[in-house]
Amino acid sequence: MADEQVMLGHGSGGSMMKRIIDEVFMDAYGNDVLATGDDAAVLDPIALAAQQARSHAAQQASSQRVFVENVSRETSDREDQCVSLEQNVNGGLQLAFSTDSFVVTPHFFPGGDIGRLAVCGTVNDVATSGAVPVALSCGMILEEGFPMDDLRRICQSMADAAAEAGVRIVTGDTKVVNRGHGDGIFINTSGVGVLAPGVQLGGAQCRPGDAVLVSGTLGDHGITIMSQREGLGFSAAVESDAAPLNHLIAEVLAAAPDVRCFRDPTRGGLASTLNELAAQANADIFVNETAIPVRPTVQGACEMLGYDVLQVANEGKMVCVVAPDQAEAALAAMRANEYGADAAIIGEVAAAPADRAPRVMLRTAFGSTRILDMLVGEQLPRIC
Amino acid sequence: MADEQVMLGHGSGGSMMKRIIDEVFMDAYGNDVLATGDDAAVLDPIALAAQQARSHAAQQASSQRVFVENVSRETSDREDQCVSLEQNVNGGLQLAFSTDSFVVTPHFFPGGDIGRLAVCGTVNDVATSGAVPVALSCGMILEEGFPMDDLRRICQSMADAAAEAGVRIVTGDTKVVNRGHGDGIFINTSGVGVLAPGVQLGGAQCRPGDAVLVSGTLGDHGITIMSQREGLGFSAAVESDAAPLNHLIAEVLAAAPDVRCFRDPTRGGLASTLNELAAQANADIFVNETAIPVRPTVQGACEMLGYDVLQVANEGKMVCVVAPDQAEAALAAMRANEYGADAAIIGEVAAAPADRAPRVMLRTAFGSTRILDMLVGEQLPRIC
Repeated sequence: MADEQVMLGHGSGGSMMKRIIDEVFMDAYGNDVLATGDDAAVLDPIALAAQQARSHAAQQASSQRVFVENVSRETSDREDQCVSLEQNVNGGLQLAFSTDSFVVTPHFFPGGDIGRLAVCGTVNDVATSGAVPVALSCGMILEEGFPMDDLRRICQSMADAAAEAGVRIVTGDTKVVNRGHGDGIFINTSGVGVLAPGVQLGGAQCRPGDAVLVSGTLGDHGITIMSQREGLGFSAAVESDAAPLNHLIAEVLAAAPDVRCFRDPTRGGLASTLNELAAQANADIFVNETAIPVRPTVQGACEMLGYDVLQVANEGKMVCVVAPDQAEAALAAMRANEYGADAAIIGEVAAAPADRAPRVMLRTAFGSTRILDMLVGEQLPRIC
Repeated sequence: MADEQVMLGHGSGGSMMKRIIDEVFMDAYGNDVLATGDDAAVLDPIALAAQQARSHAAQQASSQRVFVENVSRETSDREDQCVSLEQNVNGGLQLAFSTDSFVVTPHFFPGGDIGRLAVCGTVNDVATSGAVPVALSCGMILEEGFPMDDLRRICQSMADAAAEAGVRIVTGDTKVVNRGHGDGIFINTSGVGVLAPGVQLGGAQCRPGDAVLVSGTLGDHGITIMSQREGLGFSAAVESDAAPLNHLIAEVLAAAPDVRCFRDPTRGGLASTLNELAAQANADIFVNETAIPVRPTVQGACEMLGYDVLQVANEGKMVCVVAPDQAEAALAAMRANEYGADAAIIGEVAAAPADRAPRVMLRTAFGSTRILDMLVGEQLPRIC
């Protein structure tokens, strides 16, 4: 396409908009559903979910992962789950539905860009319910003058992340705002996923005695963004952890069916996520500072700049609460996944006294215990 | 809530964000699904669709509409459709999925505001597939400093429009951008709907001989927005036509099952919509200028300002292509609905010669025929 910059006409609903759709969006992440051109995408979500589950199971079998026993069991479980989805929908199909807008600046950073974030963030939100994410929508708000090459790079990142996750971008929208009334590009993605009947994960499922796990190192994304903005360099490279975690979640669920919930610790970090869970569960949560994985470079950057790493955003990590007798199995499943190599059991859920609101408590490296608060206001704006 | 303006902290993921969610969003359009607080909403879409269809059928019966015979038939058809949805999902549940971002300025205008637009636009897109829209997501991008009272008004408009349509806002996201990098408020809504097995509407279904209908007067929304921006006054009031049309669509489908497709003529107007349909159908479309309903005030404003009213955006109108023997039934159903009082049959689909691309042709008031082109570039930016 000859246009080098986004112009107001690209959002007009006319032939210029058709051109940007065909030559930039379709060119990057087009598929038969998106190509239909009707106002809404029509999907067979069960078939899409079954297709993704089979493809994932086949990948698992062929990659000869660490615990062969578990792989065999998981493959047959996943096939059973496919069959179960297809046959038992009558009894209680559940749909998972989520949305996220992405306003991160800068648009490109080590480890990813706004496009990768946009796909991974929504895939992960949908997957936290235990659902198989099948389809995304993509709403772009572009600022007049935004370079078309940047837009193409971002769309290609979205295509790559969607392919890795096994989801398709099936419907979209493009708006253009006048120069000065946007910030280059904002992206909204919404996602739908299919949940087998009877599966019910969520903060309210957590109960005293449950184990709390995290899938890897904390603070990587927020520190990467901040370092880009401030022009800081570190002795060791830090990059965003943005990643699609739906396969990791599926593998953990196969190994540990008594997972209570998954939650992705994005804005507000681990601390805010744990506080939300404690409130939903009406229970206390205790975590052990020395068990929480943090890269030394990230820890150093936080200390230097006065951030609490437990309140810094992550874009490729999962918090998982699971029945205590399945904690080790869940941990092993996380560590066997490429995105869970540094997973750890970091704490537990405990009964909250009736006379006060539930709290999150941190057992520090010094042996003391302090309250771990939710982030209050803005720490790092426009982090995702 | 004490905060009078949106601040960066409201998008932080911490307790300030929790406050704006509870005291503004939940307060306006909250429901049990949105209150759950997990990362994704989990829905039983079949049950929601059946509930909406029953409620609509009951409303129909009680309002003693014009053609009693058709009401009786429609009520029982809708009940049959509910039963069919619940029993036959095994065979081929289809999900409709759509997204739209809203960047209109000004935020408030005669006939509505950005909130009403955001709900109606996505409800209508989902409904064009023939699906029953059941749930929306809402992603807000707020600019630092945006007045909280304006946000409350907008959320209340969303709640009212959602209630009218019979849909719920089940999941959301809030981002805040620094002053100067947004425009007060941008809203993305995505929507999901349930489509009975075997229903397949779309531009590609249109064929030579089909009738083309429009549900009412064109140009109202675009001219309203433009007049607000330019401070123009007219002798007769003009207001945006923003409205949820899923009930109208359901009523038309009940009266005329051989509808080929619905399309909402938003940005780019009727002309762009018809050109998209002609391309999908690989057929010509002829429309009769004198049959197209336009308010005299709107026509006058277009002539004065040099706009082609057929390229001006609408937010509460449907184009409908239907088998010729059901055109009158479809028209009667539209006219019996509060939003279709001015509906008209405006033209027909015709075979396109093999030696050229399909065209849209306008038979003018003077007796000539001219090509009706798609809008090329920007006519009125930020119209929706």
